[in-house]
Amino acid sequence: MRILVVGGTGTIGQAVVSKLSKEHEVITAGRTSGDVQVDLTSTESIESLFKKVGHVDAIVNASGAATFKLVEDMTPEDNLVAVQSKLLGQINLALIGQKYLHNYGSITLTTGVMKDDPIPGGASAALANGGVAAFVKSAAIDFTHGIRINCVSPNVLVESFEKYKESFRGFTPVPVERVATAYVKSVEGKQTGQEYQIY
Amino acid sequence: MRILVVGGTGTIGQAVVSKLSKEHEVITAGRTSGDVQVDLTSTESIESLFKKVGHVDAIVNASGAATFKLVEDMTPEDNLVAVQSKLLGQINLALIGQKYLHNYGSITLTTGVMKDDPIPGGASAALANGGVAAFVKSAAIDFTHGIRINCVSPNVLVESFEKYKESFRGFTPVPVERVATAYVKSVEGKQTGQEYQIY
Ligand SMILES: NC(=O)c1ccc[n+]([C@@H]2O[C@H](COP(=O)([O-])OP(=O)(O)OC[C@H]3O[C@@H](n4cnc5c(N)ncnc54)[C@H](OP(=O)(O)O)[C@@H]3O)[C@@H](O)[C@H]2O)c1
Ligand SMILES: NC(=O)c1ccc[n+]([C@@H]2O[C@H](COP(=O)([O-])OP(=O)(O)OC[C@H]3O[C@@H](n4cnc5c(N)ncnc54)[C@H](OP(=O)(O)O)[C@@H]3O)[C@@H](O)[C@H]2O)c1
Repeated sequence: MRILVVGGTGTIGQAVVSKLSKEHEVITAGRTSGDVQVDLTSTESIESLFKKVGHVDAIVNASGAATFKLVEDMTPEDNLVAVQSKLLGQINLALIGQKYLHNYGSITLTTGVMKDDPIPGGASAALANGGVAAFVKSAAIDFTHGIRINCVSPNVLVESFEKYKESFRGFTPVPVERVATAYVKSVEGKQTGQEYQIY
Repeated sequence: MRILVVGGTGTIGQAVVSKLSKEHEVITAGRTSGDVQVDLTSTESIESLFKKVGHVDAIVNASGAATFKLVEDMTPEDNLVAVQSKLLGQINLALIGQKYLHNYGSITLTTGVMKDDPIPGGASAALANGGVAAFVKSAAIDFTHGIRINCVSPNVLVESFEKYKESFRGFTPVPVERVATAYVKSVEGKQTGQEYQIY
């Protein structure tokens, strides 16, 4: 398969690419890193990414930003960071990317544990995660030509725990290795409309 | 209690207002209908609503639009209708409105069954519903001063079924009366971070 991995140089992305590239042709994308450049917060940038890359068999995203702030201090503007990136960045990658998928191709997006197991200041990220998971479940029944869509919801990673541990007190982090296998299941398996929760 | 009900003249809103107004002072709001005017798709309009209405004990929303279109035909622009209205309209009502809540006040938003039980063309509405539900669950742990937040997820209503039945084949509609009681539970009860699924 020919597979596009947006965020392929990140902590999760690298682990996914390392697994997928054993059997597939992988193209990585990031704002500055990767084989090709894209900024998911811009639909023009997504359009031009696909014009460059052409048709693929799978689209994977392992990127997305959010502002972490207590709701009591959060403004509508603060919330837009997650909405433009984690939420609409991923949805627009799916909406635009679907036209560049071969039959039986797949889309795999990224959510996260915070929507199910909230942390202080995580409401904006949770909103984006919840929106993506619901979109995936619903979009799956609309697709024809064998096109599939899933998402992976990782717990906080062992590899990122040092950085995030103040926010994730009492969480049991999961190794990125385990998270990466869920992306492989989505790409190489036959399921659709799923959220793989690696908690 | 002094209660603001946005969408108070709609199918759900009317039923909620009819229950709440027995024991409380209810102010209804809509774009053209209601006691005061607001368009939730504009943060300026929400700000000026609260400047007019002042402090309240409960904020309820029973409004929100979305474009219904199969994902294969959906553009990023189509999706923005639900994002601006059902998703950000409600979130911004919460973010701005929290400053106008008395201690122990509550916020009650509206989601819907489509995020859990998808219908064709419903992915954009599902996205908004999923985003709101996750925000509510997460925001609840951030609030202090006894502020609470919940949402109600109605199935398709008996009262709206004639209009929507082509999209909701095989669904068992619920009476608006049952849905309205969940808003009362959210406003008069003590729970927070809940999604009341009236399916
Ligand atoms: N790490 C965790 O513990 C954890 C747990 C649950 C969920 N997640 C979620 O999983 C995703 C990836 O996490 P991570 O820790 O692997 O992130 P990371 O190490 O920071 O890597 C992010 C990757 O995405 C790219 N990227 C960032 N913004 C982009 C944009 N606007 N457009 C295109 N590419 C962009 C980056 O490359 P460039 O800098 O070149 O753009 C990089 O390749 C995030 O959404 C994160 O919230 C992470
Ligand atoms: N009906 C159902 O079967 C059902 C099932 C599940 C979920 N829901 C959801 O529940 C919500 C209410 O549904 P409904 O059937 O009661 O709707 P409805 O009968 O169409 O009433 C909508 C109400 O919201 C107001 N409104 C609309 N857009 C607004 C905006 N941008 N800003 C402020 N107010 C606005 C309307 O007044 P103005 O016209 O004056 O603005 C009206 O009072 C919607 O989000 C809907 O998707 C409905």
